Amino acid sequence: MNRQTDSRVVLTYGTFDLFHVGHLNLLQRAAALGHRLLVGVSTDEFNAVKGKTSVISFKDRAAIVSGIRGVDFVFPEHGWEQKRQDIHRFSADVFVMGDDWQGRFDDLQDLCEVIYLARTPEVSSSSLKDKIQGLAIR
Amino acid sequence: MNRQTDSRVVLTYGTFDLFHVGHLNLLQRAAALGHRLLVGVSTDEFNAVKGKTSVISFKDRAAIVSGIRGVDFVFPEHGWEQKRQDIHRFSADVFVMGDDWQGRFDDLQDLCEVIYLARTPEVSSSSLKDKIQGLAIR
Repeated sequence: MNRQTDSRVVLTYGTFDLFHVGHLNLLQRAAALGHRLLVGVSTDEFNAVKGKTSVISFKDRAAIVSGIRGVDFVFPEHGWEQKRQDIHRFSADVFVMGDDWQGRFDDLQDLCEVIYLARTPEVSSSSLKDKIQGLAIR
Repeated sequence: MNRQTDSRVVLTYGTFDLFHVGHLNLLQRAAALGHRLLVGVSTDEFNAVKGKTSVISFKDRAAIVSGIRGVDFVFPEHGWEQKRQDIHRFSADVFVMGDDWQGRFDDLQDLCEVIYLARTPEVSSSSLKDKIQGLAIR
């Protein structure tokens, strides 16, 4: 950690359904970009707007993200327009997302640095659901 | 935390497949029983001996448990007989398991305190797999 990262507030967002090592890697790498990591977790209602249904409830998804070392604060993400407001209210210096969102949040660069981190290959909540549905594992 | 818990080494074990809020609650409550929490994570080979197949590999299950705040050290659990040896090698003061194992490890009471913690109701890796297999969620 250098002088620059010592004082930076980092902000990221996600659903974090079926918490997996890809989520962990992203949170740990985001945490390493600054001194304080704030994470917006999509509510079940916002997921419905996105056409997604999570297996795990917002309450439990938020609890697990809060339990990860390096995560300082977790708050609900209610809608798309919230990110810009959050950067202001948290005085965020860095906005981080997985690179499946590459380029999608470049408009926030007028407010703070925008970084897309490479996702962990072959790990996603969707692929986990596919795997579980495909195999009759107990 | 009182003077007693300030110096206690706590030991627990599990598979921690599809990491969920029940796992989190157990780890956090175990961590609160001492000053250092060591967690044995069952290897894929040991799970096979137990007749279980995890969805998530040992490497990734161990990484997630290591990422939980309050967990100080994670090591592989290779077999049933290991617990007694581990209590010795780690000088563990407290052995903790979920109460689905109630009474099953009472023989370790000659070495250290044995505590069974109440599991989080209605949450388990098996019930998650059932839910995902039952619903065509993506």
